[in-house]
Amino acid sequence: MEQIKIHLDEKDMPRQWYNLAADLPTPMLPPLTPDGQPITPEMLEPVFPRNLIDQEVSRERWIDIPEEIVSILYRWRPTPLRRAVYLEKFLKTPARIYYKDESVSPSGSHKTNTAVAQAWYNKQFGIKKLTTETGAGQWGTALAFSCYVLGLECKVFMVRVSFDQKPMRKTIMNMWNANCVASPSTETEAGRAILARMPDTPGSLGIAISEAVEAAVSDKTGKTRYALGSVLNHVMLHQTIIGLEAKKQLEKVGIKKPDVIIGCAGGGSNFAGIAFPFTSDKINGAKIEIIPVESAAAPKMTQGKFAYDHGDVAGMTPLLPMHTLGHNFVPPPVHAGGLRYHGMAPLVSQAIVEGLMTPWAADQLQSFEAALTWARTEGFIIAPETSNAVACVIREAEKARQEGKEKVILFNLSGHGLLDLAGYEKYLTGNLDRSCLTADDIRRTVDKIKLDPRADQRKTGKW
Amino acid sequence: MEQIKIHLDEKDMPRQWYNLAADLPTPMLPPLTPDGQPITPEMLEPVFPRNLIDQEVSRERWIDIPEEIVSILYRWRPTPLRRAVYLEKFLKTPARIYYKDESVSPSGSHKTNTAVAQAWYNKQFGIKKLTTETGAGQWGTALAFSCYVLGLECKVFMVRVSFDQKPMRKTIMNMWNANCVASPSTETEAGRAILARMPDTPGSLGIAISEAVEAAVSDKTGKTRYALGSVLNHVMLHQTIIGLEAKKQLEKVGIKKPDVIIGCAGGGSNFAGIAFPFTSDKINGAKIEIIPVESAAAPKMTQGKFAYDHGDVAGMTPLLPMHTLGHNFVPPPVHAGGLRYHGMAPLVSQAIVEGLMTPWAADQLQSFEAALTWARTEGFIIAPETSNAVACVIREAEKARQEGKEKVILFNLSGHGLLDLAGYEKYLTGNLDRSCLTADDIRRTVDKIKLDPRADQRKTGKW
Repeated sequence: MEQIKIHLDEKDMPRQWYNLAADLPTPMLPPLTPDGQPITPEMLEPVFPRNLIDQEVSRERWIDIPEEIVSILYRWRPTPLRRAVYLEKFLKTPARIYYKDESVSPSGSHKTNTAVAQAWYNKQFGIKKLTTETGAGQWGTALAFSCYVLGLECKVFMVRVSFDQKPMRKTIMNMWNANCVASPSTETEAGRAILARMPDTPGSLGIAISEAVEAAVSDKTGKTRYALGSVLNHVMLHQTIIGLEAKKQLEKVGIKKPDVIIGCAGGGSNFAGIAFPFTSDKINGAKIEIIPVESAAAPKMTQGKFAYDHGDVAGMTPLLPMHTLGHNFVPPPVHAGGLRYHGMAPLVSQAIVEGLMTPWAADQLQSFEAALTWARTEGFIIAPETSNAVACVIREAEKARQEGKEKVILFNLSGHGLLDLAGYEKYLTGNLDRSCLTADDIRRTVDKIKLDPRADQRKTGKW
Repeated sequence: MEQIKIHLDEKDMPRQWYNLAADLPTPMLPPLTPDGQPITPEMLEPVFPRNLIDQEVSRERWIDIPEEIVSILYRWRPTPLRRAVYLEKFLKTPARIYYKDESVSPSGSHKTNTAVAQAWYNKQFGIKKLTTETGAGQWGTALAFSCYVLGLECKVFMVRVSFDQKPMRKTIMNMWNANCVASPSTETEAGRAILARMPDTPGSLGIAISEAVEAAVSDKTGKTRYALGSVLNHVMLHQTIIGLEAKKQLEKVGIKKPDVIIGCAGGGSNFAGIAFPFTSDKINGAKIEIIPVESAAAPKMTQGKFAYDHGDVAGMTPLLPMHTLGHNFVPPPVHAGGLRYHGMAPLVSQAIVEGLMTPWAADQLQSFEAALTWARTEGFIIAPETSNAVACVIREAEKARQEGKEKVILFNLSGHGLLDLAGYEKYLTGNLDRSCLTADDIRRTVDKIKLDPRADQRKTGKW
């Protein structure tokens, strides 16, 4: 029997994060103000602590992981690298399929990696409280845990519809003393304004972000900041520990490099985590296919524009250079809630523009079919988001069978699905649809993307 | 920093189960028919396959684990042994606390260890279908998975109240193609009879057992058998892989033996799994304190009788020699559903009678308090059942601090609590009570235990 679990000793856990911005062939475009001026670090200071802003704009290739962060990550890191031999057999593929299991963290997903780091840097900067938004609750849970173990207060604005549908996510946040309220709430001006107009609104991530940012910047003590769970450069950075561990683990079984790397991508962070350390090798000539997998319900990478756009619906954030469907885009209500975002991390977007990565979109039915195949072969229940990655893994493994190639496929199992079983129930009872957008849907939303003319001039023009 | 995760390579996974019946100072008492005659293996054949009956009555010390079972267990075994350094620090204890993490299995608990073995032996015997009951759903989930990967049909009778309260457990069973119905059902005579009398009954484990056994023995093809998730000798046997792995893992960090071993005990199987391989050492002179932890809501070991009693409420099973509160006992509705059983495994009971183990009871509030401490230090959410064990771990670690002793405490983390968060919500909002029985409650239920006179004569008389 082949070795299934490849463990890494704690002493071999990476002690530095990898920053792809140092190696991208074309320098990253800067974020811009709504009127098209480059954002200076100072302009971000009411929202983020200076040490994280420095990471956000850093061009250093390697950034040390502080010792206290290491000691917190030890609760679950290094995570196992596993070989999916049961799936391989089922597919009769000559490919070897390896995956990092990020579901083993306290929040059940990769989100905890950056949550711990962000809480720690905020604490170092003298911050006492973090605010954030959460959709399905993975990120809110991760930040609640991280703030608890580091002694910070945590305030989570949870999208109303998820707050009502997934009350257990709030219970978990409460276990770690976080204060979680449904958004829109009466606690912010943004929330009150929405409630006055639409008292029965189910809420949205865009509204929740507005509330969380307002709650941070309006705290007169100056000791509150905002934390974001994806998209930004420093979030990608913190996740690279996934791929750096995977490299060491693959070496333990004699694999110098994988042939294909796959991760699902909503804002891009779990994908970046597994892919960036290998993207560096690809820039240096290694032959690796790198595939970020989006949901066909929010196909920004395969069908959106690479453009300057806001990160939130309300247009409060800086303009970021990224693949986007327009910040007003509202995707169908797919169960992979973490993939229902209109934009993609600037670092991932830039790597796509450079030709380093080739995005692919999975629809909801093929994703759940893949998730069921996973549960029936490997025996574990994955998150709806992760199922999009597994759909691509199965496609690649079948391609390897057809081509008769002994490829090594590596992917990131970003989270478990134990708190998202409603989607499985609907799939099993025939109550899910593909949730693909039509070409008309796409055209309508992409055509709406309004670009500041000066921002427009800064595009790479490769789109 | 101390090493937290102690992994065992797959090649070092134990290849034999350990049978405590071979080493107990006093031979085990046999099961009896309702009229007090010893049960012969033949009498059990309509219910269990002969190969499992042979294991049930075996006195062999070591029993080989078949290779195909090994290859299925590899999905999650060997499980990690971890050191709870964050809890140790919080408690300021000189004790080192190690635990086996059985929550990493497909069903999220230790139950999968025996489910795979039982399904495999049934398949070897030519059986095509297994029936069982389940309360909260852990066992039903484990058997559903095991039957799926081995190609058997699986029918689960799930106690009505749990079926309604935890619909996601049914979803998981459905993912593995099991047929799960609420009990009482209209599919059996036992179920129909109950429904005729009490159409609105919430059901009980006793009724569900009756239905599952009837569904097995009434199948005219002779290809259906019944499977039980705890109590019986062969179930304890299959779980000993937990303790056997733990031994090897402790040796890797230079520990010859733990000073204290703790596991929660409902029917006894996860406790037996971690404790029996070390009980053997204790019989041979090693100084180890071994503590099965029950719920104060069903205190059969600390307050019940050691007597011959039925395993089910309806009195359909053989009489087993065990600690019991009487098979008519109905415990308060504590969230640790797996501990709400009136009896204790005969092997554990006999070991208690021999003085090898010292049971302890935890009440519901101290258990949830312990679970919250665990989540806030170690970062993971444990099952309500497991929380009873952790309450005892904390008690022992505090004792070690008071005594200034550098003890090694080993316990079994039997399952995660991600599908049982309602209890946490109630605890956090002050809506849980201790659920302890009064001395009067105990007297009333214990006094009701009716013993067959011939069975009574076979007792050890040590009670």
